[in-house]
This record gives sequence, C-alpha cells and structure tokens, in this order.
Amino acid sequence: MAKSKFEYVRNFETDDTCLRNCYIVVRLDGRNFHKFTEQHKFAKPNDNRALGLMSRSARSVMEELEDIVIAYGQSDEFSFVFKRTSTWFKRRASKLMTHVASHFDGRVVLYPSNRNLKDYLSWRQADCHVNNLYNTVFWTLVQKGGLTTAQAEERLKGTLAADKNEILFSEFNINYNTEPAVLKKGTTLIWEKRDETVTKCMKLPNAEEKEMTVTRSRRRVQAHHCDVIGEQFWEEHPDILEDDNC
Amino acid sequence: MAKSKFEYVRNFETDDTCLRNCYIVVRLDGRNFHKFTEQHKFAKPNDNRALGLMSRSARSVMEELEDIVIAYGQSDEFSFVFKRTSTWFKRRASKLMTHVASHFDGRVVLYPSNRNLKDYLSWRQADCHVNNLYNTVFWTLVQKGGLTTAQAEERLKGTLAADKNEILFSEFNINYNTEPAVLKKGTTLIWEKRDETVTKCMKLPNAEEKEMTVTRSRRRVQAHHCDVIGEQFWEEHPDILEDDNC
Amino acid sequence: MAKSKFEYVRNFETDDTCLRNCYIVVRLDGRNFHKFTEQHKFAKPNDNRALGLMSRSARSVMEELEDIVIAYGQSDEFSFVFKRTSTWFKRRASKLMTHVASHFDGRVVLYPSNRNLKDYLSWRQADCHVNNLYNTVFWTLVQKGGLTTAQAEERLKGTLAADKNEILFSEFNINYNTEPAVLKKGTTLIWEKRDETVTKCMKLPNAEEKEMTVTRSRRRVQAHHCDVIGEQFWEEHPDILEDDNC
Amino acid sequence: MAKSKFEYVRNFETDDTCLRNCYIVVRLDGRNFHKFTEQHKFAKPNDNRALGLMSRSARSVMEELEDIVIAYGQSDEFSFVFKRTSTWFKRRASKLMTHVASHFDGRVVLYPSNRNLKDYLSWRQADCHVNNLYNTVFWTLVQKGGLTTAQAEERLKGTLAADKNEILFSEFNINYNTEPAVLKKGTTLIWEKRDETVTKCMKLPNAEEKEMTVTRSRRRVQAHHCDVIGEQFWEEHPDILEDDNC
Repeated sequence: MAKSKFEYVRNFETDDTCLRNCYIVVRLDGRNFHKFTEQHKFAKPNDNRALGLMSRSARSVMEELEDIVIAYGQSDEFSFVFKRTSTWFKRRASKLMTHVASHFDGRVVLYPSNRNLKDYLSWRQADCHVNNLYNTVFWTLVQKGGLTTAQAEERLKGTLAADKNEILFSEFNINYNTEPAVLKKGTTLIWEKRDETVTKCMKLPNAEEKEMTVTRSRRRVQAHHCDVIGEQFWEEHPDILEDDNC
Repeated sequence: MAKSKFEYVRNFETDDTCLRNCYIVVRLDGRNFHKFTEQHKFAKPNDNRALGLMSRSARSVMEELEDIVIAYGQSDEFSFVFKRTSTWFKRRASKLMTHVASHFDGRVVLYPSNRNLKDYLSWRQADCHVNNLYNTVFWTLVQKGGLTTAQAEERLKGTLAADKNEILFSEFNINYNTEPAVLKKGTTLIWEKRDETVTKCMKLPNAEEKEMTVTRSRRRVQAHHCDVIGEQFWEEHPDILEDDNC
Repeated sequence: MAKSKFEYVRNFETDDTCLRNCYIVVRLDGRNFHKFTEQHKFAKPNDNRALGLMSRSARSVMEELEDIVIAYGQSDEFSFVFKRTSTWFKRRASKLMTHVASHFDGRVVLYPSNRNLKDYLSWRQADCHVNNLYNTVFWTLVQKGGLTTAQAEERLKGTLAADKNEILFSEFNINYNTEPAVLKKGTTLIWEKRDETVTKCMKLPNAEEKEMTVTRSRRRVQAHHCDVIGEQFWEEHPDILEDDNC
Repeated sequence: MAKSKFEYVRNFETDDTCLRNCYIVVRLDGRNFHKFTEQHKFAKPNDNRALGLMSRSARSVMEELEDIVIAYGQSDEFSFVFKRTSTWFKRRASKLMTHVASHFDGRVVLYPSNRNLKDYLSWRQADCHVNNLYNTVFWTLVQKGGLTTAQAEERLKGTLAADKNEILFSEFNINYNTEPAVLKKGTTLIWEKRDETVTKCMKLPNAEEKEMTVTRSRRRVQAHHCDVIGEQFWEEHPDILEDDNC
C-alpha cells in the first residue's frame, strides 16, 4: 500500500529486544490492590476466592504461552518465566509484557544464570513468608484479640518471626505451621507430563469399527505450594531449567 | 521487614524511565485480531459493535488517566498520548504500558516536538484512510459483486485511490465520500470543557432552605471523527499541545 | 565472505540509536583528573597551559565533526552538542561518544527542546562560576594568606558568593570581576561565517595569466568566553539552534 | 555548593548500567582505518609496526584495568572482556567504553554464558582467518604477480579457502600454514601467574643487614597467538572463565 509522508515517525520506535540467552521474567502486580480488596470486601488476611482467581488466570496465561517454564504467585503478584532460548514475539519486551498483563502493572527482568533465576524465585517466596506471617498475626490480633489496627501495628513493631509464632500459639492457640501451604509458600505452576489413556473408535479395512485404547503423554500445567528455596524441588523437576552453558 | 539474602536479584531490574519533555505515545493493537473477528462473526468490512466497544474502552482509559491529552483509534488499534510534562508512574514505560493495555499488544514511543506528534497522528489517520477505502471496495466486490475474495484481491491489485472510488461509484453506485466519518477518519478523543448548570439546595443562616443554580466548568472526554492531518483541528483545540520550547 | 557458525553472537549487540529530533550532548570529563594535575604540576587554581590544550583539542574535534553546533568547556569537562537533525554515525550513541572521546570519560544525553538545551549549557556555566569563585578564594588564602589547605577549607565553610568576593577584595585587594573571562565563564565554541579575500592566479583564453581577488564566505570555529545563561548570546547567534517544531 | 535552577536537566541522563552477571565485551575498531593506513604508508597486507603498536596499547589498557580477563585482537580491532562479576565504574557502559577507547570506535556487548563468550571470540578468530587468507593472496597477486588491484579482486571472486591456498602454493611457492601465527590467529592477551625471585636486603634485630631471596607469585599480561576456537586453550587456562551458575 501507499506510504504516507508521515511514516518517518515510525523511526522513533526503539528496539526493546531482550538480551539473548537470559531467562525473561514478567512480574505483574495488582494495581491499586488495596482499594480493590476493599471494594470487593475481601476476607482478611487472605481471601480464598481471590487466590483461586489469580491462580486460574495464571494457569490460562501459561497454557496459552508454552514457552513459559514456571510461574510463581503470592499475594497480589505473579511472576512468569520464559525459557532462556525463547523467541516468542522476537523477545520484544513490550509484546511479552502486554501479552501477559491484563489489569496488572508489569515489568520485565532478565536473569543470565540458573542461580540468578532460583534466587529470584526464592526472593519472592521469602517475601511471601515474611508478609503472610505478619498478616496472619496482625488480623488475628484484630479479629480475635479485639485490638484496633493501630494497636495491632504497635504490638508487632520490632517483633521477630519467633515472637509472632509465639503470639499465635500462646494467645490464640494457632500453630502457624499448620496454616495452608498456599498461603505460606505461594503458588508455583509448572508443566508436567501425564500419561493419558484414551479410547478411540477406529475403522478397520473391512469397514468394521473397533474400539482401541491408546496411551499418550500430554503436558499439563500443574500447581504446587511447596518450597522452591531448597534444592529438592529443582532435583525433582530437572526439566524446568536449561543448561547454563548453552 | 527483614531482607532476604536473595534480594540482590532486584538489581537486575533496568530503568525504563521515558525521556523527559517528550510526548509519550502508547499504541495498542489487538492481538490475533483476525482470528478474534472470525470467532465473533464480525460484520465486514466494519463491525459497529466492535468499533463502539473500542471507543468506549478508550474513553474509560482516558477518563481514568487525566494526563492523556488525546487518543486516536482506527481499525484494531488505539494510540494514547500522555502530555510531555507528565510524571505519571514516574514516566516508567512498563507501568504506563501495562496500565493502558488489556488484551492488547503495546509499545511506547517518544516524540520530542509538536510537529512529530501531529505527524504521528497524521500517519495513523492516513493509514486509516488507505485501509478503509481498500476494505470498503474489497468487501463490496465480494458481497455485492459476487466475486470470491481471491478475485477481489486480484481485481484491486495496482489500483489507486481514484480507481477504487470509481469502482464503488460506477459499479455499485456508492459515493465513498458519504461513508461514515468514523470509518474514514477514525476516532479522536480529547478533553473538552463544558459549562454545567446544577441546581443545589442550600441551608440559609436562618435555617431555611433555598434552591440555587450554580454554573461550573467541567472537563469531559469528547469523541471526534474529523480530519487531524490539516491545521484546522489543532487551531480549534489549542489546549491539546504544550509549548515546544518548554 | 563465508559466514562462521559463531556469527550468531552478533545478535547480542543492542541498538543504541539516539531518539530522533533531540539534541545529542556528549559530555566528557577528565579521568583521574586530580591525580593528573599533580603529576604534571598544574598551577593552582587554574593552569593556562591545560586550559589552552583543552580548548585546542575541542576545537579540532569540532572542526572534524561539522554536525557539532556548539561546544562548551569549563574545568576538566567539555560538552559537544550535535544538531537535533544530525544523522552522523546513524545517531548511534557508542559511535558518537567514542569518536569524540579520547582519554576522557563520556556520557550521551538527549534534550528534546531549545529550552532544555539552553538550560543544560546554563547549568554547566553556573557550575563553572560557583567552582571558580571557590577555587580562586581557596588558593589565594593558601598561596597569599599563608593558610594550610585545611584551614582554607574551614574558613570558607558556609560562605556565600558575596562573602567570597569580600574576602578577595578586603584582604587581598583582588576584584573578582576583573578575573579572566575564560575562568569565570568557561569556553564556548561555535561556527562563524567569515568573509575571506583570496588572490588567485587565473589563466586567460589568450594564455596570459592574471591575478584576481575573490571574496568568499567560510565557516570557522570561534571561541567565546561570554555569558550563555541570558538571551543576548542566543539572539546574536540565531543559527545555533534549530526550530523547536521541526 | 549551591544548586542552580538549571540542574533539572541532569534528569535527562539515562541509566546505562550493564546487566549483572554477564560478561561485558568492549570491542574497538579503528576509525577511518583505510585512510589511516594510506597516510602512514602501512606495508601490505600486514604492517608489523602497526600490529605491535596495537598489541602494546591493548596490553597497557589491560594492565591498568585488572577486571579485564582476556583481550583479543586482529586486523584493526580489539575486544576486551570484563569478568561477569565486575563492578568497575558501577558497570556503566559509557564509562567502560570511553575508558578503554582512544581513537577507536567502540561498542559494548553483553554475553550471559561461557559458551556465548567462547563463541564470540571464535567468531572474531574465524573472521581473522578468512580475512587474512584473502589479504595474503590478494597482495601477493598484486605485489609478486603483477596484477592490478582490480584484476586481483576479479581473480579471487568466488574462490574457496582451498583455492586460495593453492594459488599461493603453486604460483608463488608460499605455504600459508607457515605464515606467522600473529596474522593467522590474531593476538590473545590473558593474565598469567609467574613466580618471581627477588633479592631483598633486610635489617636484622642486631642491626646487621642480610640479603634474602624471596619467591613470590605475580600476575602478568601474556600474549598468545594460538587457537581459541577449540577446547585446548580453555583447558590450559581454567582461570579465565567464571562458573556459569554464579
């Protein structure tokens, strides 16, 4: 088609291709999440409907974009990791980000080694633990202890993890260790192979039909709420990471 | 709160602050738009429901983000222009983009002068004209002329605008000039001041109540389907652009 | 020539094209300048040899790169301004920077408007004034007043410009206003047109030779040590800046 | 010191920090090298003075910047590799580049894995081989074969490496394999530990003096002209590369 004389402005667009051979992490945060939780009357400190919605949304993103090798969510954030050799959208940051985002604020970060990537996920999971323990004690003090939010904040100032566990246990008979893993550890989504048995109806050469049982392997997105900071998870799922020296 | 030893990975995040004193344009395109139109059985060559939905979505984005001074849409794309002095989200490209985007693919472009910005909008409007004329003739040949899509494509190969106008007029008695402006020119959204007259009920010192009529000025998003390539539009709306030498 | 299988690494190179229609400023600073001045026994507070060398080096850079419209130097730094429409080295930042640099540390900055560019040069000239006044008083206190450098530093702590002028005048009979302009204002290099009269020897059709005087206009780099913060300089040299709305 | 009102322009400077945990390669090319070689009457196809000068310059850059782990030069280019954990100049690209550059054109490239880095160096060495073989035959045809440069160019069009070796051998009795390694392989600079024996004069408690021999290990820059494409070089120098998973 004809070119207009205005087309020179296209040259103002800049190249945002992500450096090759790095993991591409798209991290999304809910915008104005605090206000959103109030408008929708979320349960405190955690709202199961909201957690389920986040998890299902992340799963559908992952099922659509097969180059995402792992996704991790906690609180109002979710991180999606594209494999380091991915060429989706020619590795263009804006395309990757807007494709994953919807009603989220996002950012793209590059990690050059497996160590960096594991540390990134560990950082988010450590953050999850610290925040969830705090929120659990805080809202217990408010909801069961009768404190105002200001009093609860004051009470927790300067306390360590052990102190918070102790408050829960001695004052409210709550054992933090038995709280749901989804809250303590967040949600980790990965691809897993499953053998599926399917019954098929096949037409034989003599025009008869015959039922046959076929077993095939299929990749599915699977949710975990386990520890990703230690080595065990990575040893059990060796397919997630690519060789560093590729 | 406690810092985890993994937090060093935060340093891998890069600064994506947009250059100061430039207009920031976020342009969004529908992803897999072709497939989308088929799934939803869009009318050809233009679907009024879809156009209306795009326009209403853009309007709500603009009403929420007051630093957007003008927005322009055509076909499956919409461009949102942030004023050059905007400090929204600290001018961070990823935040601006994901905030505006939802089910779109986006990109951020910077334009340093009023001339560049007008040329950008002119480029998109010239593109709108070329595409819409083509699509109008193409689908008329198919729907009214009985050609297959391959035949229509062949027929239009190498034709100029005048040829296409002629086909429409002499073969189908259609005057392209009288087609709806929204299709030929796209949609331009801007802020406009309106005087509003409100009737208020006020309490007087003697405890009586009295109805009063108050006139106040209020900014509203207004849609236009006019030419933005010439100077007239800009002369009629001098508040859209900021002084170049600011 | 044959491509090697290693050539894929070329794709790791990133695009560093400078945004179009912005002034490109390359600012250079002497590296380890303090140590350098000691090794070469520079006169304090200013060394005329060094200032002359800087100025001559900048002039030769500018004479070689005609797209530099103005250069400004003070202390151990020099800023070179490429015109906003320049396409030298395809506007690639690394090429522009390393070409200008030699034994300097550099950085590239973009300015979208004439106002921004004037403010950039004003910023550097204001910096020049503040530093030169301080250094002049400081080294006078040391060299003529017999103070140690620590004592001179202590003496000047918290003093304003007026106080420093007063110390120079009442204690050392030095009027700062009569100090050389090159120190107070720095050095500004620009292109200026000069009429040159050249005598040429021409061969006539009848094989005789005849001397002719030809006047022609030629661009030369000219040094100034005047104020660039006010409007006078810019009004006297209207050719330096390009139209904002280009 | 006082802040001027112009200082806001500092905010136009952009962050050019190199991504962490990547090798940083600064590659320099001679600018206008062709013209330079003519002005200085370089010997063809290779000039030993120039090669020696390049190598000595690169060595002195490396001796000054200890975070450079390997440097590789061929023709008019030299590549300097900063270790992936380097924090020199806070990893700011412009600082690293201008520091290394002087009369060169430069660019900074990041490589996330050992494999990428080896491939980068292999790419440059493969390039060296292809160019040097071509230039050797080309100038032999001109200088010993009496061809013009245009004729030599025509003669070599479409020839493979084997053809060029054959021309050299059968027509000029030159065995390319015995050409100097510095030309065929380029120059690789690395740090090597050497034991040095120093004789020191020490004062004993009883005020007598005694000569003592001390052996100490010292790092020195060492030049190699060997193959870096295969694994042997890297196995012999295991200290150059850092662990990929760091």
